[in-house]
Amino acid sequence: MSAFNMAAMAAQAKKASRVAAQLTTIEKNTLLHAIADSIEKNSESIISENSKDIDSGREKGLSEAMLDRLLLTTQRVKDISSAIREIIALADPVGNIANLALRPNGMQVGKMRIPLGVISMIYEARPNVTAESAALCIKSGNAVILRGGSEAIHSNLALANCLHQVIEQQGFDKNIVSVIPDTSRDVIEQLLKQKETIDLVIPRGGEGLIRYVTENSQIPVIQHFKGVCHLFIDKSADLTKAVNILVNGKTQKPSACNAFETLLVHQDISEQFLPLAAKALAEAAQVKVHACENSISYFDGGQLATADDYHAEYLAQEIAIKVVNSFESAVSHINEYTSDHTEVIVTQDVSRSQRFIRQINSSVVMVNASSRFSDGNQLGLGSEIGISTSKLHAYGPMGLEALTTEKFVVYGDGQIRE
Amino acid sequence: MSAFNMAAMAAQAKKASRVAAQLTTIEKNTLLHAIADSIEKNSESIISENSKDIDSGREKGLSEAMLDRLLLTTQRVKDISSAIREIIALADPVGNIANLALRPNGMQVGKMRIPLGVISMIYEARPNVTAESAALCIKSGNAVILRGGSEAIHSNLALANCLHQVIEQQGFDKNIVSVIPDTSRDVIEQLLKQKETIDLVIPRGGEGLIRYVTENSQIPVIQHFKGVCHLFIDKSADLTKAVNILVNGKTQKPSACNAFETLLVHQDISEQFLPLAAKALAEAAQVKVHACENSISYFDGGQLATADDYHAEYLAQEIAIKVVNSFESAVSHINEYTSDHTEVIVTQDVSRSQRFIRQINSSVVMVNASSRFSDGNQLGLGSEIGISTSKLHAYGPMGLEALTTEKFVVYGDGQIRE
Repeated sequence: MSAFNMAAMAAQAKKASRVAAQLTTIEKNTLLHAIADSIEKNSESIISENSKDIDSGREKGLSEAMLDRLLLTTQRVKDISSAIREIIALADPVGNIANLALRPNGMQVGKMRIPLGVISMIYEARPNVTAESAALCIKSGNAVILRGGSEAIHSNLALANCLHQVIEQQGFDKNIVSVIPDTSRDVIEQLLKQKETIDLVIPRGGEGLIRYVTENSQIPVIQHFKGVCHLFIDKSADLTKAVNILVNGKTQKPSACNAFETLLVHQDISEQFLPLAAKALAEAAQVKVHACENSISYFDGGQLATADDYHAEYLAQEIAIKVVNSFESAVSHINEYTSDHTEVIVTQDVSRSQRFIRQINSSVVMVNASSRFSDGNQLGLGSEIGISTSKLHAYGPMGLEALTTEKFVVYGDGQIRE
Repeated sequence: MSAFNMAAMAAQAKKASRVAAQLTTIEKNTLLHAIADSIEKNSESIISENSKDIDSGREKGLSEAMLDRLLLTTQRVKDISSAIREIIALADPVGNIANLALRPNGMQVGKMRIPLGVISMIYEARPNVTAESAALCIKSGNAVILRGGSEAIHSNLALANCLHQVIEQQGFDKNIVSVIPDTSRDVIEQLLKQKETIDLVIPRGGEGLIRYVTENSQIPVIQHFKGVCHLFIDKSADLTKAVNILVNGKTQKPSACNAFETLLVHQDISEQFLPLAAKALAEAAQVKVHACENSISYFDGGQLATADDYHAEYLAQEIAIKVVNSFESAVSHINEYTSDHTEVIVTQDVSRSQRFIRQINSSVVMVNASSRFSDGNQLGLGSEIGISTSKLHAYGPMGLEALTTEKFVVYGDGQIRE
């Protein structure tokens, strides 16, 4: 058991959440401006704390990729401030009532958007998540408890320090933002029990972390396990669109969760499409192919796909390919292997496009567009705090609205129930 | 460990949920009509199974109130069918896209309502919940797993039998509705682990059951602990409205969770209001009063209120009363003791009515209306499947829409990301 008192921090956050919920949009935007300015102004000291993390990361033998994700530079600190300024520009969802309906007895009934209360983020070594998550929670009127990885603890505390100063200067409760200083695992265990004070936990990181949080939390969790995104080339696909979407969705940023991992091709178009696909994938990025027995002959150096390949999230220039004998087989394959992230059909047939949209219940379903658009910014939500692949509360990319809920409001004039 | 295979039932329900999700509104309404008819037609055999529950309930020494909740009569079976027919009349939320926005690159992006998938209800001895929950889940395109109390097992299985026959006659997978035949506690434990197949658990019953489910579930839970509803009589209240709303909210159906449990009175109006309140509460239902030291003198036979009284959900003709010295004190009291159910202000002052609406974040907040309207039907949702006092996904009375979620749909024409 850690000496750090998780329950006390959560209780303070709960108290601060009442303050956060009542801030006007002007107050929140003024606060975010001041935070963005202060982070830029304190760039040097933040980078100096970050270098402690980099040094100890190097000692611990972190990979170069990990070290790069951890590293802050003057430009990257500026980028954090820019990201916060973009959040200022987003519409504030809090307080909106979409529709006040008149009941037969003359009462008006509507639903007003309100903050969730206290949100906790559990994430791995990316210091920018600390500042950007805090900004999204402030803009949506929530208090936030941040628990970053031990690798980034100096950077995270430096950012927290900066945020706290600004929040206090603006005359608000600094506990609107809390960074957990203790990076031991049993703090997470404690955190996941604070169901009286914390309203939502969002884990971001590897599958192990997310599974641990899901299985141990008494607080609602929004989870995103992985993205096994499918592209289905229907028999009536436009071949040019099909090739462009395949190449863009697979190769533009293969490390992203919205990159394609499996290509399904209708057998009636496979002879025309697969040679084009093979050429384009090889030219674009020497994509490694795991193909079914009906398609492997098109791919030089292709390997025969196994069931594991259809489950794989490669996150690399690598793809699984399967020829299917019907639209229905494509839908069944997707339903069996889906990660509920993003699935795309390329077709010129309006009926099948509509059937695909209706029959696939992944969080993002697209017709004739690249899976790389499956992202809060690209879909028009502004900055995103994560992507949910579980259906409760939020499903798909999560913007500010996903950090709020709705209460019922009733305007009466003395009505009583008969 | 029970011999009953929970995981197998959940997997079958998951499979059936794909069928349920694709049913058209016409198919669902036809099915619900047939179910309503069949329940009425099989009234005798259902009542005969119910009598077994009543007999064994009497042997086990259930209270008369419990036995009455358990009892089915010809009229009550008819009522169940009527309730199902009301669900037929509700609008089907599935498939709706509220708004398709055009992105700068020409893609259309919208959110389409889809069923959650598999919903599990865990509830106590009321056989009508079995049929009505099944009907709400069918109408919203979900599969449902029902786990009623052991006291009602014969009634529940008789209803399930009836539902299964009809669903099969209509040519659909009968596993759209499952009733767990095993009423042992460890089945619940097993159920709460089926996170790969069950999307949502809704417990309805005592606080102990709900707490157990919340603390042990790996599946998202929508919970409703209790209703400690507050009425605040502001200094500028209309006294007639105030008295009417107090009497209606407290005495019309005190066993309901939306009945008032605490009355807060602004000190500037207490001398005028409290004598009227005392008279009205005594005349309406001999309401037992637990009053603060500043109000007790108005109530014959009143007892001095303790902190416990302000936490109490009496569910009886009994109320806690406190005089507060300001609007802010009323808000603080409510924030401290709230169950996040329903709070009401009576005031003629427009600024304070708006401040109350903004500052109280319970699931239902009302101005000048009785708390008894805090109910799905009264608020215009149609039949309700429960009330949520936790903020994630649904907050307040839950209608059909609370049994759905939204996926993103994207209509492109070959767009790729730059």
